[in-house]
Parts: sequence; C-alpha cells; structure tokens
Amino acid sequence: MVAHSATLAINERLAARRAAGEQVVHLGFGEAGLPVLPSVADVLRDAAGRNGYGPVVGDARVREAAAGYFTRRDLPTAADQIVTAPGSKALLYALIAALPGDVVLPRPSWVTYAAQAALTGKRVLWVDVAEEAGGVPDPDLLADALTRSRREGGNPGVLVLTLPDNPTGTVAPAELIKRVCAIAEEHDLAVISDEIYRDVAYQPEKVISPAVHIPDRCFVTGGLSKSMALGGWRIGFARFPTGELGTRTLDTVIGLASEVWSSLAAPMQEVTAHVLDEPAEVTAHIASSRALHEAVSTAVHHEFTAVGASCRKPTAAFYLYPDFSPLAADLAEHGIEGADAVADHLLDHHGIGVLTGSAFGDDPTAPRFRVATSLLYGDTDEQRWEALRSADPVALPWIDNALNRIRTALESFRRYDARRTVRRR
Amino acid sequence: MVAHSATLAINERLAARRAAGEQVVHLGFGEAGLPVLPSVADVLRDAAGRNGYGPVVGDARVREAAAGYFTRRDLPTAADQIVTAPGSKALLYALIAALPGDVVLPRPSWVTYAAQAALTGKRVLWVDVAEEAGGVPDPDLLADALTRSRREGGNPGVLVLTLPDNPTGTVAPAELIKRVCAIAEEHDLAVISDEIYRDVAYQPEKVISPAVHIPDRCFVTGGLSKSMALGGWRIGFARFPTGELGTRTLDTVIGLASEVWSSLAAPMQEVTAHVLDEPAEVTAHIASSRALHEAVSTAVHHEFTAVGASCRKPTAAFYLYPDFSPLAADLAEHGIEGADAVADHLLDHHGIGVLTGSAFGDDPTAPRFRVATSLLYGDTDEQRWEALRSADPVALPWIDNALNRIRTALESFRRYDARRTVRRR
Repeated sequence: MVAHSATLAINERLAARRAAGEQVVHLGFGEAGLPVLPSVADVLRDAAGRNGYGPVVGDARVREAAAGYFTRRDLPTAADQIVTAPGSKALLYALIAALPGDVVLPRPSWVTYAAQAALTGKRVLWVDVAEEAGGVPDPDLLADALTRSRREGGNPGVLVLTLPDNPTGTVAPAELIKRVCAIAEEHDLAVISDEIYRDVAYQPEKVISPAVHIPDRCFVTGGLSKSMALGGWRIGFARFPTGELGTRTLDTVIGLASEVWSSLAAPMQEVTAHVLDEPAEVTAHIASSRALHEAVSTAVHHEFTAVGASCRKPTAAFYLYPDFSPLAADLAEHGIEGADAVADHLLDHHGIGVLTGSAFGDDPTAPRFRVATSLLYGDTDEQRWEALRSADPVALPWIDNALNRIRTALESFRRYDARRTVRRR
Repeated sequence: MVAHSATLAINERLAARRAAGEQVVHLGFGEAGLPVLPSVADVLRDAAGRNGYGPVVGDARVREAAAGYFTRRDLPTAADQIVTAPGSKALLYALIAALPGDVVLPRPSWVTYAAQAALTGKRVLWVDVAEEAGGVPDPDLLADALTRSRREGGNPGVLVLTLPDNPTGTVAPAELIKRVCAIAEEHDLAVISDEIYRDVAYQPEKVISPAVHIPDRCFVTGGLSKSMALGGWRIGFARFPTGELGTRTLDTVIGLASEVWSSLAAPMQEVTAHVLDEPAEVTAHIASSRALHEAVSTAVHHEFTAVGASCRKPTAAFYLYPDFSPLAADLAEHGIEGADAVADHLLDHHGIGVLTGSAFGDDPTAPRFRVATSLLYGDTDEQRWEALRSADPVALPWIDNALNRIRTALESFRRYDARRTVRRR
C-alpha cells in the first residue's frame, strides 16, 4: 500500500539514535516542540468522566466553538458545517476519498497528501510552487497543467493547498491565492485548504483562506497539533462549504468516519471546544509560540543563506526549505551527489537530521530539504517554557548551541569551498 | 460510499427524542452504559502532559502491556506484535483493507464489517451462523459456501469472527471454533477475530481465541470500549501473528495508519497500558460489570421468550437477538409486516428502540432484532454505580421499571393474540 509516513519514520529513527546516547539535532520532524498549556491540561482532566459515544461529527458544543473560530476569521460558519476527528489527517483522507477526480498537489507539499491519494486509488498531478511562496501551485503552471491533463485524458478534481505551508514555512500572498482560486473555479476543482498552521503565521491577519474567494467549493481543515502543540492528542476539525457539493461531501465523509474512527475522543472534544473559544490565555500562549517560532526559524534561515543555500524567508510555523543547488559543485567535488547523500552526510557526520524534498514530492535528485526548527526549543519542559517566555530565545544556551552545531555543519561545506578557492589561486 | 453507521444513527435518533422530553427505552445502541472507573480517570488526568507524537503503533510501554494481556490469555505475545489505534474499528478497517481477497462474514454480524468491506472495494460472502451461537459461521455452511464461491470465480480471503458476539450476545463453543479454524486453514483464509467483548463473557475462561488454533493466520482485535465502558475514549489494539503473513500485514497496516490517523492519542495510550496491566481494581470493576450485564441481559431475555419470541440465551456482553418469527401471524393480523414495521411500532407506540437485523446483514424481511440491554442501568452515574454494586440489579426501581415497559410492549402482541383467541373460542 504505502510506506510508513516519511516524517514519522525519521522521527522514530532519530529518537532511536538519541535513546542510544547520541547527540542529534533533530530538524526532521514537524512537531511544535512545546509543552501543554496548563489550563488546557486542566480541561482534559475535568473531562475524564466523559466516556460515552457521541455523534460522529462531534457534539454540539465543539461544533459551535469551531464555527465561532472560523467566523472570526472572515468565514461565517454554522455549527452543522463542522466535523471533528482524531487529527486533521483523518479528515484530509476522508475528503480526498470523497471528492471526485485526480488530486492536484503543489510540489513540494506535505508528504501525506500524495500518500492518501495513493491509498484512495487516485492519480496525482504535481504542479511546482511559485518562487515567492509554497503551499500553492504557481498559477501559470497550474492553468497549463490542468489543460494539458484534461487533454491527455486526466480528470483533475481536487486541489490541495497548504496555507501557511509545510514544508516551506511560508504564507502564499493574497494575490497568488486569488489567482489560484479563479483557476480552480474555471476548471471546476474542489479545493481543500489545509490551514493547520494558520494561527502560527507570523502575521496571522494576512492569512486569507481560499474559502473567502470560493465559498461553495472550498473545504478547510485545521487542528490543534501546531498552534497548541497538541500533536499527540490527535485533534482535528474541518469546515465544509454550504451548498450541494458541501452537503453531499459532508454525508460521504460522515459515512466514512462512522466506519473507520467513529469520532474524536469525547474528552478531546472538550479540549477542542475550549481552545476554539479562544479564551485570553490560549490566545496569549499562541502569540508566545508564534514569536518563538519566528525567532528561531529566522535564525536558522540565516545559517542556511549564510553558506550560500537559497531559501525562502519563513513567514509562518517552524519550517525552512533550503535549496543547496548553489553549492552543487562543492558537494560533487566531495563525492556528495544527490539529496539523499547530503541528508546522510548531515546525519552521519554532524548528527543533524533533515528530510529530503523527495518526501514532499520534489525531484529526488534536487538537493532540497525540509528543515523543521521546532525541536531546538529544548529537551525539557523547563527549557521550553523558558524559550517561550524569553524575549531573545536564540540567545538561550541550548538554542545557541544548536545553532552553532548547524553553523559548523553548514560551514564544513564552505570550508571545503574556501580551501579549493585558495588552492586555485 | 456508505451510509452513516446504523448503530450510531439510531443512537443519535433516540438521543434527540430523549432530549425532546420523550421517555425512551434505548435498546438500540451497543454502549456499555457504565461510568469511568475513578482510578482510570486518574491515569488520564496524570497523562495530560503527554502531547508529543509517538510511534504509529503505540509506545513501548503500551505494546508491552497489551502483549502481557494476550499472553495471560493463552496467546504468548511479544510487544512488536501489537498495534494500538483510536478504536478497534480503525484497526478492523486497516486489516480488511490489508488482507487480500473477499470478506467472509457471519450473518448476522456487526454492521461495520460489511460497511468496511464496501469501503475497501471488497465483496462480502455471507454465511449464516449456527443455531447454537452467533459470531461464527455454521461450519457446514461455511465449507460449502467457500467451495461454491471459488467455483463461481470468487476469491474468499478473510474471515471475520466475533468472539463473544455482537449482535447475539453469545460465545461460540470451543468445538465450533475449532471446526471453523480447520476450514479456514484448509481454504487458506486469514481470520480476524474481533474479541472486544472477550472480558465481558459471563465465563471468560471459556473464550478460546481462534489464534490458539491457527496462530499464523489469525489477527485479534480488542479495545476498552466494552469491558471498561470507554467507548467515547476511542481505544483499540490488535495482535498480529508472527510469521510472514503477520509481518507483511503489520507493515501494510502501519503504512495505512500513518497516513490516516497517525496513532492513538498519547494520554489514551497511558490509560490503555494501565488497564491492560490488569491491576486488581480494574479486574474487580470488570467482574462487577460482567455480573450486571449478565443479570440484566438474562432478565430481558426472559421477557422476549415469555411472549414466544425465540432467542439464544445470552452468554456474554449486553445483547440479545430475538426472532419474532413465531409471532408472525399475530403481527400480520395487525398490519405489522416486516422487521422495519415491528421496530417502528415498538418505537412509535412504546418508546422502545431496537435495531433491525438488516443492519447486521440479516434478511430485511425477517423479524429479528438486536436488543442492547446496557442503557437500562440508569440515567445518571449514581444509578449506574448503584447498579454495578447491587447484588440484585434487576430489582432496582429504574431497571425494574424499564423491564416493565419492555414487558408491556411485548405483551401487547400477546394480548392481541389472547383477544383473538377468545374471539375464536
């Protein structure tokens, strides 16, 4: 069927090395790397008595809270447009299964979309992202690719966008999204907008959901894994459009959910409702997280560009997507050819784990990597809380130390370069 | 794709009636109907800090606990044979998707197996259960059906057993299981043994897993929804066989799990490990639950047989599967024809909700019903605790009252009968 998810696999591989006593700098896994907000832990504790099965979609309270969350983000929403689930991944799977046609994906994009398309027996049409930002296909390339696909007998039906984006850590500009939405409308595509990173965009007010432009055909998914660092709690939700497509798809998704996972665990529904009501301490916690993500991601971005890699400036979350192509000649001289060789070199010689772009559908020979910066915040909750509260987190010794290790690893490429340059003089 | 799960749908329908102030006797939904054991709630509370993603299969601690649980049940098990998930339903789906061939199901059997087969594009071969017990196809019919199916171009590959059974509330006798296992071996079928009700068999030591007989080809699923009444917590686990089939299937299931639901929520893994370690208070709680299930289910069984319905005597869980065929003439005389009409009559005239056998793959015209008795234990946790602690739970006023309402409803058929008999004298 499909291989074990690449992001989860590298996490397990690095965890095993760390458990064996090795020092690793884990840049491979997209975990928010922060502790549970105490008031949210209290909500889970208070919900420990809730053991009954409830509706597949979630109970009325959590659906209303999610409706309010979206309504406050320029998407007026009724409770019956909401479905909760054990992770937004499950909802993405159900949506990809339910919506007809081939799946159109930005390249690069999160590893799971293509795997889910494969699981549901769907073809994938890849379209490169624009230079300015990831998560959204380049509009010109998209229009061409759709026309060509149709001409060749393809049936593009579902476009998946990631906003803000994993793996590039960027928010597609409003104008780009508007153009892509117009193309989706013209070509009669349904759009799934994965907005799980929405609240950790560095300027969240600049994130405009495609659902604003194409309300009848846009499905939005979200979750608490990133903004609240609750990945291990498996909390996801989706907003379905009103209208015929939305209603029909909602029915199909509920049918699938009821036969595969039933519902989000009841105590987790309480947590979800609490967070999506956005009490002040939740909002403040997310703001602190966002500032920490920006500070560290920006610092790591600096290390990559300093050695000559090209890399989009991060504007959201805790990811970078450096391209080592400008260093290709140096790498080749040292026998490091291809993206896997670079990743293995970083892991074997410097204890640094990154994911190659091929895990995101990118050209497997291109030396591009997803670098997740969020596991640098600390090894203990004490360190992570200190990082969250710090006005200058990159100056904290453990983060500074990690940045130094990254710098040393990256400069090793440069030093070779410098040496060669000296020799040639 | 598939309709919203029938069992969940009737639950929602009856809950809505109850919320509207109607008095209902909810015999439609397979919820254990009991409160959370306080020491287990404490484990969830203590685990509220666990927010990290972990391995797809579950962490080492929960896998070891599940291995111990199975080992104590005559199935020596290593931790790496275990996968946890948000509900055993998700694991059943993954197993049905992963194991090749058509799906062979006992008729009647739990609504979800056939729906999952449909979702994964598989054909279903139905084989009636034996008169003596449900959950396992009649061995003679099974052998014939497999031979016939192969002759007609079918490809039976996976046999699903339910042990103990939902919807009949019975445990298939050891000899029957042995014969079915021999046939599975002979016809090279993989077997999925759904043992989620195992610990609420009235004589649990009499439950012998098919995995004892056919260790290389039997996959066992379980969960905490029934024995611990934690349906809303969505906790499931599976035991994979060792050997080539087991290992290959494990890889496929992990691949699917990693792209659909990732893992069981980390705090729920703590709960699972605690329960499967079987500390004394957990064992005692399950013993009390089992005794309550037996007392009430046996009392309700008496009501059905008293009016002339035929019904297997329950030996597990909280289900009955009465057959109204002996009352068919009476029903017809009152214009009640077909199973749906009986169910609607019970709901509309007596506020009693049952599920028709058609939801379990049975002949939709046959007047057979699944009757779940566990929502009679009380409307509040106080009542449910009192029921659990009572030496004579059926004498408790709220349970006695429900039994009276069931009796009145069932005797209404008889009274018509009696009236008619008088008239004919």
